[in-house]
Amino acid sequence: MNRGANGGNRMKTVVCPGSFDPITNGHMDIIQRASGIFDRVIVLVAANQEKRGFFTPPERVEMIRRVVAEAGLQNVTVDSDEGLLVNYIQRVGACAIVKGLRAVSDFEYEFQMSLTNHKLLPACETIFFTTSARNMYLSSSIVRQVGKLGGDIAEFVPACVYQQIRQKLTGGKEQNEGGLTDEKSGIHPQ
Amino acid sequence: MNRGANGGNRMKTVVCPGSFDPITNGHMDIIQRASGIFDRVIVLVAANQEKRGFFTPPERVEMIRRVVAEAGLQNVTVDSDEGLLVNYIQRVGACAIVKGLRAVSDFEYEFQMSLTNHKLLPACETIFFTTSARNMYLSSSIVRQVGKLGGDIAEFVPACVYQQIRQKLTGGKEQNEGGLTDEKSGIHPQ
Amino acid sequence: MNRGANGGNRMKTVVCPGSFDPITNGHMDIIQRASGIFDRVIVLVAANQEKRGFFTPPERVEMIRRVVAEAGLQNVTVDSDEGLLVNYIQRVGACAIVKGLRAVSDFEYEFQMSLTNHKLLPACETIFFTTSARNMYLSSSIVRQVGKLGGDIAEFVPACVYQQIRQKLTGGKEQNEGGLTDEKSGIHPQ
Amino acid sequence: MNRGANGGNRMKTVVCPGSFDPITNGHMDIIQRASGIFDRVIVLVAANQEKRGFFTPPERVEMIRRVVAEAGLQNVTVDSDEGLLVNYIQRVGACAIVKGLRAVSDFEYEFQMSLTNHKLLPACETIFFTTSARNMYLSSSIVRQVGKLGGDIAEFVPACVYQQIRQKLTGGKEQNEGGLTDEKSGIHPQ
Amino acid sequence: MNRGANGGNRMKTVVCPGSFDPITNGHMDIIQRASGIFDRVIVLVAANQEKRGFFTPPERVEMIRRVVAEAGLQNVTVDSDEGLLVNYIQRVGACAIVKGLRAVSDFEYEFQMSLTNHKLLPACETIFFTTSARNMYLSSSIVRQVGKLGGDIAEFVPACVYQQIRQKLTGGKEQNEGGLTDEKSGIHPQ
Amino acid sequence: MNRGANGGNRMKTVVCPGSFDPITNGHMDIIQRASGIFDRVIVLVAANQEKRGFFTPPERVEMIRRVVAEAGLQNVTVDSDEGLLVNYIQRVGACAIVKGLRAVSDFEYEFQMSLTNHKLLPACETIFFTTSARNMYLSSSIVRQVGKLGGDIAEFVPACVYQQIRQKLTGGKEQNEGGLTDEKSGIHPQ
Repeated sequence: MNRGANGGNRMKTVVCPGSFDPITNGHMDIIQRASGIFDRVIVLVAANQEKRGFFTPPERVEMIRRVVAEAGLQNVTVDSDEGLLVNYIQRVGACAIVKGLRAVSDFEYEFQMSLTNHKLLPACETIFFTTSARNMYLSSSIVRQVGKLGGDIAEFVPACVYQQIRQKLTGGKEQNEGGLTDEKSGIHPQ
Repeated sequence: MNRGANGGNRMKTVVCPGSFDPITNGHMDIIQRASGIFDRVIVLVAANQEKRGFFTPPERVEMIRRVVAEAGLQNVTVDSDEGLLVNYIQRVGACAIVKGLRAVSDFEYEFQMSLTNHKLLPACETIFFTTSARNMYLSSSIVRQVGKLGGDIAEFVPACVYQQIRQKLTGGKEQNEGGLTDEKSGIHPQ
Repeated sequence: MNRGANGGNRMKTVVCPGSFDPITNGHMDIIQRASGIFDRVIVLVAANQEKRGFFTPPERVEMIRRVVAEAGLQNVTVDSDEGLLVNYIQRVGACAIVKGLRAVSDFEYEFQMSLTNHKLLPACETIFFTTSARNMYLSSSIVRQVGKLGGDIAEFVPACVYQQIRQKLTGGKEQNEGGLTDEKSGIHPQ
Repeated sequence: MNRGANGGNRMKTVVCPGSFDPITNGHMDIIQRASGIFDRVIVLVAANQEKRGFFTPPERVEMIRRVVAEAGLQNVTVDSDEGLLVNYIQRVGACAIVKGLRAVSDFEYEFQMSLTNHKLLPACETIFFTTSARNMYLSSSIVRQVGKLGGDIAEFVPACVYQQIRQKLTGGKEQNEGGLTDEKSGIHPQ
Repeated sequence: MNRGANGGNRMKTVVCPGSFDPITNGHMDIIQRASGIFDRVIVLVAANQEKRGFFTPPERVEMIRRVVAEAGLQNVTVDSDEGLLVNYIQRVGACAIVKGLRAVSDFEYEFQMSLTNHKLLPACETIFFTTSARNMYLSSSIVRQVGKLGGDIAEFVPACVYQQIRQKLTGGKEQNEGGLTDEKSGIHPQ
Repeated sequence: MNRGANGGNRMKTVVCPGSFDPITNGHMDIIQRASGIFDRVIVLVAANQEKRGFFTPPERVEMIRRVVAEAGLQNVTVDSDEGLLVNYIQRVGACAIVKGLRAVSDFEYEFQMSLTNHKLLPACETIFFTTSARNMYLSSSIVRQVGKLGGDIAEFVPACVYQQIRQKLTGGKEQNEGGLTDEKSGIHPQ
């Protein structure tokens, strides 16, 4: 990256990576902020084949596409990848990774990741946005736990995600159970 | 909750939730503090059916009952539940969740939980006590690890719990091993 | 304090100490939560004679009294003291100190204070409430800084406090300047 | 800010505020990263009239201009202001505040500031970059302390800043002493 | 330990425990610092039989021995143990446990461990070194993840370790997969 | 420092720097631990001429000497210096700086200092001990505040220090008041 001679006419693309299992209102908050500042935002779903999730990566991609379309974010696209993040960054010509920060523990982990990615690809910046105060408590894990215990998650996720979670929890109980067994149960009495 | 018109004659009940696998001197410290301030304290054991523990939920309830009785805490009762914590709070008419704080990492997680529970049930407060300095290092996980490696845990747990841990570790080795395999081994050389 | 035999009919008084220079919506949030749970809440203004503030201690007491009255919190009283906090606690027969937590840095300082106060007076508990997400960014210092630089603080403080700050900042510029010189200027370009 | 319809042809300006007393290699790291990603970067020196610094605000502006010119960062300009940061942001039409993060304590303070600024001006985003590992220990305060005690600060600041600090410390001892008296002395035996 | 009469002629041995799966440049940094200050350093590999790693404990011991020999650290030996750490400390007559600190989250966990070990064996001190800035982002887990996704880890680990990781990842895919399935995937798009 | 060939017969000296205004039981805890592990410990009082303290640097040195003598720590000496810490380290041929850690906020500051000192003098290591749980809440600042407000500080400081604080607070009120005006008052109602 030619710093200081950035050229005002270059298209600025950023990548917003995550597991998004499922996407929450907190994720959407960060995606919207990024889409207001950068020319193009790629939401990138981690397609880790060894780790079974609540939704499959294709289901997650599909949900994010619907949520992004409903929000009218025309400069946001959604993709999925299972390789090294810096390779993807390089392939699409992105100038930065965008991450949201909620708390100190987020910060430490993300800081370590940003130093590692910078080492692997020096031209790769990591940029952090902080979530709105109203989304500070939100995480995909909390959404899954509350949903599973029958709590009301309508205010935690976009409307179309809400429908799909309810459907999965009521209709497809058997095949999904596995994805939830290793939850750290915080909403539960613990 | 009608704030500001709380009515001095209302019975104040709080719930102290946790996995208590097993109860430690640190837990007892918090329970005693709460029992000195509130009219009634319910110690609530999480009965998560998917996650196998060291002791079963009924064993944990039984142990806590003995410890509480030996300490003469007459306004403390013990219960177990597997649903959403805020539902339990509402059912028993508790005014607050009571949690102990030992360290910054506790604080962040508990803060997130308290914001989520407040969102799910606005009338539900979370109140934090800090542990005594002498109990700062204690956790159920450390007790299990030290016990399993043959270390002396007599000063970490109430006397009757100590007996039951020793018994389980010596007599029932086969069936309990599973509950310990996922320990983060910190007492071990690591 | 006779723990475990607390007696359901004892009146529970807590003290909510602070400098309250001035009281913010974040402070009021904590005071309201405490007033919903305890029988009597004493808001205690630190009257530190060596440290000159923005408002004088009597001005602060007066403002809090008005705010508390407007909020209809009948079990809340306001007082001021310049001695050791544990002595005050003992004098009024309070069972606990109540503090609000906003962030990790708050937590560490408050934790140290609670251990010290517990050492000075073993019967004295410190109980923490966490602020609502919407008040997480609020502090008296931020209110003073934003107000002084002409920013809109109407949403940060109760209405009657807002009037007094505006009045002090426009009418009484000369005598108050001193109280602001040592601000850590965060709202300012820095 | 019309999010999601950001328009790829809009010029993106960010403001990088600070006291810069003096600018360090760590500051330059952040400024260079921002200049590689955004179309225009304004480095904004806080001109707080009540707080006396080591260098005056005009001296700081002048030094930053020289350092930025030497680094060939053509899309970076330097300015100074004493008002509310969000007012400046609005006046110049910037889309975001850019800040560097070094540590957890930075993070907490900056998080609080970003929530406050977002409240004062909802269209105002705060974006964080993390410093390179090699600059993690750097701060203007450390540079001033080490310099004053005669330590070698050549690797901590740009070359032209180094000259000016040495000059100020040797030639102008009397008038500058005041600016250093309130240092938290960490390099000193303490 | 007879404090204050330590006797200048006593041999000082410290133990540097860890899982070292595999040893990184960050670990070597700490080991070298310790070997420069203490008379004898024992690097102790945790041989936890229940938890399957990437390399087996004997493989790890062997690799560390080669790395230590190549670095010419003549006062460093390597051992492996599966019991309680304080028992090992006592058996070899070590005066302290040596650990490296990288971040706040490290600190909290290590603090808790040091208090526990001090309780189990009062004569056992824990001494912390901080890593060099250039190694702050390094962990065995990151090395394994980056390696597995095909990233270049040559700068993260000593040369001979690099060879063994490449060999294991290419030749022995089937039998090692298990050791990686529970990784928290941070380098991956997440 | 010739790492890896440290030579078992070299005398190991460490420096334990601080302001010690006054020395507390927490400081003594760290000094005793260091004296049990290293051949020689130099307690170094910061003699910052610009910052007026509660006790003068010579008074602090004198008090530490008495406390160290009473504790029978024959390998501990006390000194005072006003220059750069790394210069002192080099002059006395010490192998490391020793610091105590109580909390996360300590850690971050000390980490920054250790990186800076390492940069200024690469052979200079910083070694951290953690305080005993019972001393975690202690700081010189808390001792001064509690003492000044008339609280009992007998358990916070060594006996001879206790006498001198009482004497200073009762007899010499006028000349010392200045040293206390900038306290962050946490024991006070605040």
